[in-house]
Amino acid sequence: MVLEGKVVVAQGGGPTAVINQSLVGAVLESRKFPQVTKVYGAINGVEGIINENFIDLTQETTHNLEAVATTPSSALFSTRDKPDEAYCKEIFKVFKAHNVRYFFYIGGNDSADTVRIVNKQAEASDYEFRAIHIPKTIDNDLMMNDHTPGYPSAARFVAQAFIGLNLDNRALPGVHIGVVMGRNAGFLTAASSIAQKYPDDGPHLIYLPERVFCFDKFLTDVKKVYDKYGRCMIAVSEGIKDKNGSPIIAEYLKGEVDAHGNRQLSGTGLLGDILAGEIKTKLGIQRVRSDTLGYMQRSFFGCVSSVDQHEAREVGEKAAQFAIWHNIDGSITINRTGNYSVEYKMTALENIAANTRLMPDEFINKEGNNVTDAFKHYLQPLLGCDMPQASMLRAPRAEKILKR
Amino acid sequence: MVLEGKVVVAQGGGPTAVINQSLVGAVLESRKFPQVTKVYGAINGVEGIINENFIDLTQETTHNLEAVATTPSSALFSTRDKPDEAYCKEIFKVFKAHNVRYFFYIGGNDSADTVRIVNKQAEASDYEFRAIHIPKTIDNDLMMNDHTPGYPSAARFVAQAFIGLNLDNRALPGVHIGVVMGRNAGFLTAASSIAQKYPDDGPHLIYLPERVFCFDKFLTDVKKVYDKYGRCMIAVSEGIKDKNGSPIIAEYLKGEVDAHGNRQLSGTGLLGDILAGEIKTKLGIQRVRSDTLGYMQRSFFGCVSSVDQHEAREVGEKAAQFAIWHNIDGSITINRTGNYSVEYKMTALENIAANTRLMPDEFINKEGNNVTDAFKHYLQPLLGCDMPQASMLRAPRAEKILKR
Repeated sequence: MVLEGKVVVAQGGGPTAVINQSLVGAVLESRKFPQVTKVYGAINGVEGIINENFIDLTQETTHNLEAVATTPSSALFSTRDKPDEAYCKEIFKVFKAHNVRYFFYIGGNDSADTVRIVNKQAEASDYEFRAIHIPKTIDNDLMMNDHTPGYPSAARFVAQAFIGLNLDNRALPGVHIGVVMGRNAGFLTAASSIAQKYPDDGPHLIYLPERVFCFDKFLTDVKKVYDKYGRCMIAVSEGIKDKNGSPIIAEYLKGEVDAHGNRQLSGTGLLGDILAGEIKTKLGIQRVRSDTLGYMQRSFFGCVSSVDQHEAREVGEKAAQFAIWHNIDGSITINRTGNYSVEYKMTALENIAANTRLMPDEFINKEGNNVTDAFKHYLQPLLGCDMPQASMLRAPRAEKILKR
Repeated sequence: MVLEGKVVVAQGGGPTAVINQSLVGAVLESRKFPQVTKVYGAINGVEGIINENFIDLTQETTHNLEAVATTPSSALFSTRDKPDEAYCKEIFKVFKAHNVRYFFYIGGNDSADTVRIVNKQAEASDYEFRAIHIPKTIDNDLMMNDHTPGYPSAARFVAQAFIGLNLDNRALPGVHIGVVMGRNAGFLTAASSIAQKYPDDGPHLIYLPERVFCFDKFLTDVKKVYDKYGRCMIAVSEGIKDKNGSPIIAEYLKGEVDAHGNRQLSGTGLLGDILAGEIKTKLGIQRVRSDTLGYMQRSFFGCVSSVDQHEAREVGEKAAQFAIWHNIDGSITINRTGNYSVEYKMTALENIAANTRLMPDEFINKEGNNVTDAFKHYLQPLLGCDMPQASMLRAPRAEKILKR
């Protein structure tokens, strides 16, 4: 059966470096099919749908689409709206009015949940309709996926940042803390481990939300490293939690809570300042610095994994192919089949929606303060080609004459 | 006259993305001369000299030197020590013991001052000696220079960060503040202006240490932009000052002061939090975020200007050539001769030491809240090749059907 009608593509949640690759993949592939009457882009995600704010992407040049594909952040703009049933009914009214028969929503697990609800509405009212969720998230926390488009590029940014911060900390020793995004999943923070090239390279300590964070253990860890190397480089996830599962910074924050009930943890230097303060006062180390990598992790322009670019493009294309050739709904998944190769499948929206994948135990060391080689083997191929490598001088020491 | 003896190269102050290019330029050029008996690298700047901590760079491979050249941060490590006369006497004792006849010190104006003092000591004791300061600083604040090695790459990092942050702010509107390094000179903060490609692109407001910062004017500026675009992207220098010339964050900070009397302003999210707080409470805007670009500005691995790389290499080479062929002391300067071309000269150390160059008036707009086109024309060629360009969709709006 050929289902004739419009395509609507939209983007939800936080931007990534490659989310526009998925957009362009879905648009260019959709434009090939005669049963697709128009390809619309919804401005500001689901918000744009209920307000009929569409742009007609069948009237966009291929050149400009390709230029947009290499530009980070969401070209159709985004939204944090989380539609309820009533909101979804409005979406559905608009889709019916415009004869929209294909809906591709690029986003994280919240966006998958939106697609699931819209699809349920369509089924209930017997409206023939294909809805596909295209994965993206720098957190890498979607179930059923080996990894998620957006994560490899963000991981590369974190890796390149920590290679530099480690060299900086070596040149002007002290303790340096880098705070990385990740509310529940530590994948992005763990990417800092790529900086561990020479035996004494940092980050020497990596703290993830998957393990309980204890200040006493933390100070013991830092002291041990500092005594050994005369310096200490630390990577810490913004979402580290105490033994009750409450984020360490929660009690210091009065910040707002978003529509998904998530408290804003990013974009402040607070966690770094708290940890630095503890080290200064309790360990008496004077030079303690912190950096919060902030929004640059998801939007910095010019730090992208080639693997991520290609895969993000492909999941967009596959969304159109699954929907149009195979008439099926669901969420696209990336499945690792070799070292390194992947294939794309579809899974039920229920499997992705509102669930969170965490770092598996085999990726975290026993002490809970670093990652394992298994994690590095997992991450390495995702970083793409031309990953820069730090080099150190290895000239011999010259003999002393004065020997004071 | 041929002056036979050793070369000592050292690095001082904060690292940059290209400071090792200058090191390698000086080392490889020095190794060509028969009167140079050895080329030593001092570990941790002047500290390494008084402790005779040298590595023998005549026993380092060319391949590894080239690999180090492309690695950010100071390969010989650094120091914040500011030598006084007594300290310089110690340096001089070591130089005499090792028959060091050439001293190349890569650093900012404080390092130039060190070279000046050491050189004075040598003259006073009739020790034939060449001392050359090789410029570097991301702040771009050295006198007599069109610009300083390290600045173009840091400026490129800032530009690429703000291109991304502007796109992010467009996708999820609100107010976003990016805090950039720069205690007295606003050159690095001003580099954020490269993100202004489309007419409504941010940063819409840029605040520099060269102009008095006033909270009332700031809030008026932000409100005006926010009312116009429904969002506002702000670049602000960490060193912005009140009408008494006191840094805005000084009263909030209890931080340490370094050996040069400089208070630590970087690596904390405080200034961004203060400004964001003002906007939230006084203007009632809910979504206000801030990022502090922090140490990544000087050490991020993989964001470098090709022009900066070449020039940093050349100033290192020129240091060796001036000292060895021409028997002269001083500081190397970069002088712009065309659009775009430069030549290298020598200037007296007194002209560089302990002075600070600020942004000229013609680079700052009348209102003191943005830069001029003259600044952009100054900066553009320094950013090097392959500077990424953001692209937006320009497809037409689709017609509404429900028109609610």
